[in-house]
Amino acid sequence: MPPALSRLTVVGLGLLGGSVARAARARGVAREIVAVGRTPATLARARAAGVVDTTTHDLATGVRGAELVVLCAPAGALPGLVRAAWPHLGAGALLTDVGSVKAPVVAAAEACPAGPAAFVGSHPMAGSERSGFDAAGADLFEGRLTLLTPTERTPGGALARVTAFWEALGSQVRLLTPEAHDRGVAAISHLPHLAAYGLVAAADAEALPLAAAGFQDTTRIAASPEALWTDIFRENRDALLAVLARYRGLLAHWEDLIRNGEWEALEAGLARARERREKLG
Amino acid sequence: MPPALSRLTVVGLGLLGGSVARAARARGVAREIVAVGRTPATLARARAAGVVDTTTHDLATGVRGAELVVLCAPAGALPGLVRAAWPHLGAGALLTDVGSVKAPVVAAAEACPAGPAAFVGSHPMAGSERSGFDAAGADLFEGRLTLLTPTERTPGGALARVTAFWEALGSQVRLLTPEAHDRGVAAISHLPHLAAYGLVAAADAEALPLAAAGFQDTTRIAASPEALWTDIFRENRDALLAVLARYRGLLAHWEDLIRNGEWEALEAGLARARERREKLG
Repeated sequence: MPPALSRLTVVGLGLLGGSVARAARARGVAREIVAVGRTPATLARARAAGVVDTTTHDLATGVRGAELVVLCAPAGALPGLVRAAWPHLGAGALLTDVGSVKAPVVAAAEACPAGPAAFVGSHPMAGSERSGFDAAGADLFEGRLTLLTPTERTPGGALARVTAFWEALGSQVRLLTPEAHDRGVAAISHLPHLAAYGLVAAADAEALPLAAAGFQDTTRIAASPEALWTDIFRENRDALLAVLARYRGLLAHWEDLIRNGEWEALEAGLARARERREKLG
Repeated sequence: MPPALSRLTVVGLGLLGGSVARAARARGVAREIVAVGRTPATLARARAAGVVDTTTHDLATGVRGAELVVLCAPAGALPGLVRAAWPHLGAGALLTDVGSVKAPVVAAAEACPAGPAAFVGSHPMAGSERSGFDAAGADLFEGRLTLLTPTERTPGGALARVTAFWEALGSQVRLLTPEAHDRGVAAISHLPHLAAYGLVAAADAEALPLAAAGFQDTTRIAASPEALWTDIFRENRDALLAVLARYRGLLAHWEDLIRNGEWEALEAGLARARERREKLG
């Protein structure tokens, strides 16, 4: 356990920001926790619950003097927030985020003038179809993977400190490049969300009441907030389009096999997928 | 609780057949349970466990004298099993099945010469990515929906008795036509399986280790046995092709919206799916 942060600032108190604050408080990760947010009622609730010590609507006020700032906003808002926060960070301060798409926010940070602070991109894989501060929990990151996306310009010390932070919240950390991250999550998160929305949309209204456990599981993430996901799709457009084209191509191929009665070839293709899936446990 | 069946015959001791036998035994639904199967070791295990009383490899021997026969075989084998069992059924005997596709097996039964027995198609929505007798359990049907597909030619008494049987195993029963059934399950079961296999296949090997809870849920059914599902896809080919075309068309439309940056239209489409999904609970 590293020494507690003198001051942690969380920007945004939704599911992820609220959970960062709750987890940090519960685990004594920071002596002081500051929240920056827009909704007065949410800020008041977080203060009343003792989850945060002070709150503000003003980003500059909130980040000044913080040892670590965690930006918890929709993916599309993160590059702008990095640019807005950067001039107000002090010497040795660390800036990170929780965005589901990493190349744009990393690029925004690297385009900022050299300063006394450092940026490391983070993506805790701890989303949910739920959202908002009321869904936040101190154990959201427990046992979950957090992906960090350092580049050649990331100072090693900053990377070590951000790693220690997520580990202190109960997460396991894994490093990869922003580009590999964005390609990877397009395949294992963004496309599956689009596919799940599509499965629900493709079913007749009369078919839905027949839904059994398999459909419930497969489409659980189709209950996710569409504004959040539209934003993620926009931020990760190129990687998503690439894997979506691959997926549609595969379905078109399987459709041909089904139409032509080529059952052995279809079964062989499904077998390869089943073997890969079984390895995931 | 209706009076116990004098003799129940289960043809096939896989996940579903084994579970029918276990559930019937556990709930005292039949005084005698006979199993027809191919694998001597499985039949011996079922006898040793007291799940069935007698076993045979011979279909005619197994169904003769039964009050209710439940055919538990892959969808493609069911029409042939109906034709093979039919001449050996006695007066008042009931024949049903557990197939995931109903029009072909119902057609096979209705093409049999009028006789002393009656057929009602059943589909307990209680599959699993697991398979085989060892995965079978007495509670598999508990709280699950069983779809029955009577036609104008189904005697009302037979329908009432098959309904009572599935209810005695803990299931809720719902009636629909074989054609509505096959269209419905194409949308809420068969396409989702194909889609899940496809999501796993479309992901790079380097992306898979990043998989979080959402991907695990969405692709759980891609661990299902491919031979079983190829068989189901073959039996329900036309209904599957219809909903697959609708799904691919929708994905193509969303791909266009993403490529052209039409985010409001995309978000509106996702919202309609999210609203429908939320109603399912």
